[in-house]
Amino acid sequence: MSSDIGLIGLAVMGQNLVLNMDRNGAQVSVFNRTSAKTTDFINGQAAGTQVKATYSLEELVASLKRPRRVMLMVQAGKAVDSVIDQLIPLLEPGDVIIDGGNSHFLDTERRSEALRAMGLHFLGVGVSASVEGALWGPSIMPGGHEEAYALMKPIFEAIAAKVNGEPCVSYIGPRGAGHYVQMVHNGIEYGDMQLIAESYDILHRGLGLNNEELKDVFERWNQGVLQSYLIEITADIFDHKDEATGAATIDLILDVAFQKGTGKWTSQSALDLSVATPTIDAAVIARGMSGIKDERMAASTTLASVEPGFRGDWDTMIDAVGDALYAAKVCSYAQGFALLGQASQQYVYNLNLGELARIWRGGCVIRAVFLNDITSSFRVQPDLPNLLMAPFFRDAVASRQSAWRRVLRAAIEMGIPTPAISASLAYFDGYRSARLPANLIQAQRDYFGAHTYERIDRPRGEYYHTDWSGRGGDVTANTYQA
Amino acid sequence: MSSDIGLIGLAVMGQNLVLNMDRNGAQVSVFNRTSAKTTDFINGQAAGTQVKATYSLEELVASLKRPRRVMLMVQAGKAVDSVIDQLIPLLEPGDVIIDGGNSHFLDTERRSEALRAMGLHFLGVGVSASVEGALWGPSIMPGGHEEAYALMKPIFEAIAAKVNGEPCVSYIGPRGAGHYVQMVHNGIEYGDMQLIAESYDILHRGLGLNNEELKDVFERWNQGVLQSYLIEITADIFDHKDEATGAATIDLILDVAFQKGTGKWTSQSALDLSVATPTIDAAVIARGMSGIKDERMAASTTLASVEPGFRGDWDTMIDAVGDALYAAKVCSYAQGFALLGQASQQYVYNLNLGELARIWRGGCVIRAVFLNDITSSFRVQPDLPNLLMAPFFRDAVASRQSAWRRVLRAAIEMGIPTPAISASLAYFDGYRSARLPANLIQAQRDYFGAHTYERIDRPRGEYYHTDWSGRGGDVTANTYQA
Repeated sequence: MSSDIGLIGLAVMGQNLVLNMDRNGAQVSVFNRTSAKTTDFINGQAAGTQVKATYSLEELVASLKRPRRVMLMVQAGKAVDSVIDQLIPLLEPGDVIIDGGNSHFLDTERRSEALRAMGLHFLGVGVSASVEGALWGPSIMPGGHEEAYALMKPIFEAIAAKVNGEPCVSYIGPRGAGHYVQMVHNGIEYGDMQLIAESYDILHRGLGLNNEELKDVFERWNQGVLQSYLIEITADIFDHKDEATGAATIDLILDVAFQKGTGKWTSQSALDLSVATPTIDAAVIARGMSGIKDERMAASTTLASVEPGFRGDWDTMIDAVGDALYAAKVCSYAQGFALLGQASQQYVYNLNLGELARIWRGGCVIRAVFLNDITSSFRVQPDLPNLLMAPFFRDAVASRQSAWRRVLRAAIEMGIPTPAISASLAYFDGYRSARLPANLIQAQRDYFGAHTYERIDRPRGEYYHTDWSGRGGDVTANTYQA
Repeated sequence: MSSDIGLIGLAVMGQNLVLNMDRNGAQVSVFNRTSAKTTDFINGQAAGTQVKATYSLEELVASLKRPRRVMLMVQAGKAVDSVIDQLIPLLEPGDVIIDGGNSHFLDTERRSEALRAMGLHFLGVGVSASVEGALWGPSIMPGGHEEAYALMKPIFEAIAAKVNGEPCVSYIGPRGAGHYVQMVHNGIEYGDMQLIAESYDILHRGLGLNNEELKDVFERWNQGVLQSYLIEITADIFDHKDEATGAATIDLILDVAFQKGTGKWTSQSALDLSVATPTIDAAVIARGMSGIKDERMAASTTLASVEPGFRGDWDTMIDAVGDALYAAKVCSYAQGFALLGQASQQYVYNLNLGELARIWRGGCVIRAVFLNDITSSFRVQPDLPNLLMAPFFRDAVASRQSAWRRVLRAAIEMGIPTPAISASLAYFDGYRSARLPANLIQAQRDYFGAHTYERIDRPRGEYYHTDWSGRGGDVTANTYQA
């Protein structure tokens, strides 16, 4: 019997997707560059399934029904191009290549256009899931050729996570839209993780809570508006004991966080599109700061310290940290969705923002009750300029802003770094400022560089120059060309 | 008489550099794509000088001494490539092309290698100056072929700003080093401007100081450790009255700040090199936030406001804002120099960090007394890992940190956004943290993605995985390959 789909790349995500497809009735052929891995998989995790091993791309392709569907789960970058190049001569017009890795959206744009020109179908698919999520149901963000989506829809809907019976998959948009959305999802994930880490730091280093108390706090938070996968696993983490030493595992882990690049890409794209995503940026940067452990160790004994210890009511402050975490998280999502909105215009992706929140409710790492509220907000107002302007979030933040400010003031006093929670507040206070001090920046730019400025008493798009020092000429920098 | 140098591109910076060279005894030929501009310049600003107009690149090149030196002051990007392509057939081995625009360092890397292969010399030169600085003496950062620097050194040293008789120019390093350093200089400039803008916002919107009081505060600050060009012109700006209305000009300027891209490039490069530059990033982002004026206007009437007004001692708080500005500025420079240090390794630029601070003391927008202290710190300790670790800056920040924290607490209470001042404090508190909460981030990554972690009780480079939930397997994500 010919297979429904071929999957290339048997790392952990690839393996689990294959097992998920098999469990849901798809006949899957697999191929891995290192054949031992294929054999291990077939004799191990895949034993007793219908999964079919192949040991060359020719064999893989030959095993598939027409039109063939070949999904790549290989490392982003050159490996994807290399596999695609090898597949092209083996495929025929109408066949579908699906890249399910963490590709940069601009690579996906390029591949989408190149393959269309050859008559091949292409999907760049964000597959967002924990390791378990890949096995039991990921969130799937397919972008690319819409005809190809129709061919993959049954499989995607079968394997995706379900929330209230609805599969967490939806056609995202043309070309690189799927990978763009996945990238921003990951940036938001970085933000969530950093906000939780800062809350932990305030509670642990600042207030002195031990792991048992932390577990209780996170379990309690997971009963309310913060209910989410990341809060849930954080409670689990505080509860875990190292087998060898009996110590809390969390205390044995080195405080150097790694990254795979999609968070960084989100920040870089936001910079390109001039969209402020400071919370996400702070989260990415914090990983860089974590990396210079030796420098931090040296600095900790050299630089001025702060009187440690918290003065105030413990329980009130713990609740306030939960409020701050929630308010800061709303701002982080507001940034991510504002970026998606801008990218949708810039790259003509026609994104349905509410639908994105819907498919993130299951399977992926940022899944949370909270996403229902985002979906609802966009359903009521599809052209919502910013999540903070949705009545639900407006009120949710308003009722927490006093606690949020109190937490940051305490953290500043205790010397606990809160780059992401602070960046969220600066975003909130900046966004609600009718007038920012950027008038001074424009005045400075015009003073030193004759860059001109707009005026509040004149229409937008009229540019004025002042001879501030009385020494300048009337040549402005805007005429700068050869 | 043949000319010493040819200059292409007669926008304001180009014009002023030509006049500067002429005043310092160099015979300059000029060319501009639009010939009317050349004629206007020769009959206007350049009337009575020795500057020679040419109306084709052939004529320009023919007018030069050998080896020819041709300097481009054209818009970064395609225009530079286009002019270089037109020049190549007109030049001969040993001639020098100098790009004095705001080119991206990676473009300069590419051009440097391509032109070397043709036997032509190339310099990518950061020219940093106010409009007046270009005329009376800029800070010059030449990178590229060292043989070519020898040919340009007399002209550069003649036209550069002088501080204590020393010209603000120095050979920076190979290939794109000059433009890289200029890019970071500009990122630091963004940081300085944003920190000043936030200080203004606290004093004006928060404490209610009027423009006259602001002028006095900035004039006073310019007598002390904050003494710098930007503080000086800021005092001037608060003093300026609009001719037509008699109102303070600063109050008529729209609070939407533009950017030309080099600040953004700095943030993007820092992300690529995993160096934390949060203050610079916040400054770049703040310009993006300033740009969504209409959204901010709408949000200002919708989102929760904060009880305005400052309770406390005015004079003490004004001084504290000066301390906060200084401490935050030190952190911003610490980030910029850390980025330069990392880039020097990554791109093999062999940068002399103290020398960079030295040549920024005159001519450019960030010129400041403060840079002497940076130069001294690097002279005493060339391998200084971070400016914050230099005894001078360590003590300078230590003595101000209490005021700095007080200012931020007040700003948070008043609802004044301080993204850059906050980011500096988070940087400081992060840098002096021997242990950050990144252990939790690694635990989460291992929990949901089997990404493994390092342990404090094991050597670096050993990676461990925990089956946190008791449901996972032993396949880790690090084996991810096809």
